[in-house]
Amino acid sequence: MKSYLIGLIGSGIGASLSPALHETEAAQLGLRYVYRLLDIDVLQRDVGELLEETRLLGYDGLNITHPCKQAVIPHLDELSDEASRLGAVNTVLFRDGRTIGHNTDRTGFAASFSQGLPGAPMDRIVQLGAGGAGAAVADALLGLGAGCLTIVDPKPGRAEALVERLGDPRAHSSDQPDLANADGLVNTTPVGMAHNPGLPLPVARLRPRLWVADIVYRPLETELLKQARALGCRTLDGGGMAVLQAAHALRLFTGRTPDHGRMLAQLKELAYL
Amino acid sequence: MKSYLIGLIGSGIGASLSPALHETEAAQLGLRYVYRLLDIDVLQRDVGELLEETRLLGYDGLNITHPCKQAVIPHLDELSDEASRLGAVNTVLFRDGRTIGHNTDRTGFAASFSQGLPGAPMDRIVQLGAGGAGAAVADALLGLGAGCLTIVDPKPGRAEALVERLGDPRAHSSDQPDLANADGLVNTTPVGMAHNPGLPLPVARLRPRLWVADIVYRPLETELLKQARALGCRTLDGGGMAVLQAAHALRLFTGRTPDHGRMLAQLKELAYL
Repeated sequence: MKSYLIGLIGSGIGASLSPALHETEAAQLGLRYVYRLLDIDVLQRDVGELLEETRLLGYDGLNITHPCKQAVIPHLDELSDEASRLGAVNTVLFRDGRTIGHNTDRTGFAASFSQGLPGAPMDRIVQLGAGGAGAAVADALLGLGAGCLTIVDPKPGRAEALVERLGDPRAHSSDQPDLANADGLVNTTPVGMAHNPGLPLPVARLRPRLWVADIVYRPLETELLKQARALGCRTLDGGGMAVLQAAHALRLFTGRTPDHGRMLAQLKELAYL
Repeated sequence: MKSYLIGLIGSGIGASLSPALHETEAAQLGLRYVYRLLDIDVLQRDVGELLEETRLLGYDGLNITHPCKQAVIPHLDELSDEASRLGAVNTVLFRDGRTIGHNTDRTGFAASFSQGLPGAPMDRIVQLGAGGAGAAVADALLGLGAGCLTIVDPKPGRAEALVERLGDPRAHSSDQPDLANADGLVNTTPVGMAHNPGLPLPVARLRPRLWVADIVYRPLETELLKQARALGCRTLDGGGMAVLQAAHALRLFTGRTPDHGRMLAQLKELAYL
């Protein structure tokens, strides 16, 4: 019976829920599956070195997170279409001596959005953040039929660069999030995380007819979502994306189909610990 | 819930039964446990490098086999009393940043012998082979009350070196296995293994009142044991030692007590595949 050894490469990942989320679901599926954290700062290695070492030492695949999602690409033999289009990889498979990069953030967000905000108006959407996760979310929103997607990032040039990469006339960059005529708002910045609390934009800009999505999942109820709910907005927390990107990765690693509901329940339990 | 990642370092280990034996029993115990083969020839690394790399990349412990049982010692922080006395390590624990060497071959053989050949006369025993496993077996036989243990090894000086290390007046070396007055014979050489078939000594030397033990376990019935049984000798195959050393290592790694009978049944199933 095959067993699976998976790692997560990134920085500041000591408190990641991925090991528990993956291992618990894999155990439910009857799989032998161990998931290890490989922090580039702790190990003092770069992502290329770790990719080679893990492959040699019996790993079957990797998840890749901040700040390695772009940096890993030159070290890979192949990219999936999505990973190639986004220029970002969060999942690497080791197959027959080759390394293949995938992106499950995009499918994770898209599925979570469709399930969590069915029928949400898509004409005008404002997205905060143009990093690796932001690229996946923007591509997902365009795929879901966004009419006009405005991307705002505090880092100069980053929103513009993402718009250029997306190569879609519906995507635009802006200096300021203008919600006056928007249908929806998505936060893909880290603002609102437990160690980075606060709001990614002034609460006064929110209005009741706006739907508001956040991809932060620790905590599941960010300050942004709390304020939006208080105003009566429809909201979507980051739990669905976190679970569905993990479920998709687990499926790529093992070929087995995880139970999304069970994983979501597990995430909620873990996120409140 | 803690998960366990264990490796086996050695040479020519591609067909080892250890991954299946460990993973199957660990799964029965409800543990998350993955066991990987790390062949020094395939990886082109020495045991010291692999020890350091596996520790960094999330391994919890290692088994060590031929030809690394002695070579690993200078790289370890601590040795158990048995490993120190034998000068051979087959199990390494990573604990709180330290590496600790153990030897479960000795306890594995001793327990298998006591269970498999109860009441066997111990006055005069001849042992073939003075390698790493031979050292553990000789030490176990002395611990079990051997009156006179004669060790024979085809490699010049090796039997003498082991006798010196054992530092026990009951242990002697010899050029030739003299079974005329012996109670028992133990084979610790690799002769009789599937890829090294044959007999470790001329069958004419065997006599019916001799008990005969072999530590080879693939196949479980070696040519030596087959001939000995045909003569009416009591015999002990290598399955018990293989299982009990693995069970002891699994217990050191996880703190859980494996089911020896279940592991033996599993070994028998695997050994005939």
